Amino acid sequence: MVNVEVVKIGSNIVNNAQVLNQFLKDFSQVSGLKILVHGGGSKASELSREMNIPVHMIEGRRVTDEDSLEIVTMVYAGLINKKIVAKLQSYLCNALGLTGADANILAAHKRINSEHDYGYVGDIDWVNIAGLKGLFDAGVVPVFSAITHDGKGQLLNTNADTIAAELAMAIKEHAQVKLTYVFEKKGVLYNREDESSVIKHIDYSIYKDLKAEGIITDGMIPKLDNCFKALEAGVQEINIGGPEMFKVDNELKTKLTWN
Amino acid sequence: MVNVEVVKIGSNIVNNAQVLNQFLKDFSQVSGLKILVHGGGSKASELSREMNIPVHMIEGRRVTDEDSLEIVTMVYAGLINKKIVAKLQSYLCNALGLTGADANILAAHKRINSEHDYGYVGDIDWVNIAGLKGLFDAGVVPVFSAITHDGKGQLLNTNADTIAAELAMAIKEHAQVKLTYVFEKKGVLYNREDESSVIKHIDYSIYKDLKAEGIITDGMIPKLDNCFKALEAGVQEINIGGPEMFKVDNELKTKLTWN
Repeated sequence: MVNVEVVKIGSNIVNNAQVLNQFLKDFSQVSGLKILVHGGGSKASELSREMNIPVHMIEGRRVTDEDSLEIVTMVYAGLINKKIVAKLQSYLCNALGLTGADANILAAHKRINSEHDYGYVGDIDWVNIAGLKGLFDAGVVPVFSAITHDGKGQLLNTNADTIAAELAMAIKEHAQVKLTYVFEKKGVLYNREDESSVIKHIDYSIYKDLKAEGIITDGMIPKLDNCFKALEAGVQEINIGGPEMFKVDNELKTKLTWN
Repeated sequence: MVNVEVVKIGSNIVNNAQVLNQFLKDFSQVSGLKILVHGGGSKASELSREMNIPVHMIEGRRVTDEDSLEIVTMVYAGLINKKIVAKLQSYLCNALGLTGADANILAAHKRINSEHDYGYVGDIDWVNIAGLKGLFDAGVVPVFSAITHDGKGQLLNTNADTIAAELAMAIKEHAQVKLTYVFEKKGVLYNREDESSVIKHIDYSIYKDLKAEGIITDGMIPKLDNCFKALEAGVQEINIGGPEMFKVDNELKTKLTWN
């Protein structure tokens, strides 16, 4: 391992077959060691509805009960992961799909929260770098779905953004790491209504200001908190933008750095 | 690779959580290189029913249309595969779950049948032995679900017995291979009503006699045809029996050989 690129694709990319396909084609062209982490998309919710499995929420956050865990394991680790792997293979990218349980790459524990029980949600304890290196040596491109395990036989639902950040933080001790978040916008926007208002560079002090000014709000906050945690831990640079980043060199995107 | 043990567990083992758990515990104790292949169990049919997806049959054989393929990919490659992997990891067996698409280990083509279209069903073309060796070198125990791909992005439903046999036939060119089919009986029975009537040894000429006499019938015929194809191709010995085989040394079982 010398350079490793960790790329996370969000649910809106996964949901759009055409966009996903073009992204996978471009990703397969990225040279060197690389890892793909994918979000879940809307299929899990659709399936829950079709199967009349109620979605429990606590303060706007989904509770992963046993039925929900079965659904996300089927959809994330089964359907989406394997479709992505088969597509990458067709582009001659030697993909291998994984959960954190496979080859014991991501060990987690069930989230402890004194007020609420969010169910089978996992917080990552450590990344098995030797295991990951073994897979790179075997010549494969790991493709992670957002499922981990506790080492005691229990699968756990884990945020895909967090998995990408934890992988990058662990890899940076052994290699140069590049972390990229791909989503449906061209980057973090000044003005949500204006797709071209991409903020080209955000460091931690700018980030605090943008939050205080109400420019960065809602769902972008946990996303960027997660990024700045990785930057603080020593990941050098994180890029956020649209899938075109992998095709057009000077494509708009947001670069995040600690300083 | 010097010795490799390929073990296939049938649907009735997968369906019984307690039996499956005990088997996985025993399997994790098997020393040396090993591969697990698992059948689907009844969950895919249950899910199809819950989702009101009709099951199409032609002459008693299931047609895998697009909806059915999604279901089996979710259930086999997602739910069952990952539950097995997490359980094996808890027994310190470094399992890694796969379809044939992952690391491009099993390449197949959509079955060609001039009379009927069985849908997305795959017949295996070749086994990627170098890829498999890479995984063994990485120290993992491959766990295959019954899904392959065509290399052009299409996943395919493939019989788990066949996957186990094809793996064994490919491995035997490079290593000593032991192939074992685990199911709910203690072996091939003389008398279906008598669990203790296990036929201890069947070679090809005995097999032909047993079929002619109507002792081996129905579902056992494609199962054993599959085994004798592997034996004819040079796999030395195949054992068929119950999960206790992995715990009790002198447990009843059926040994199959070509001569």
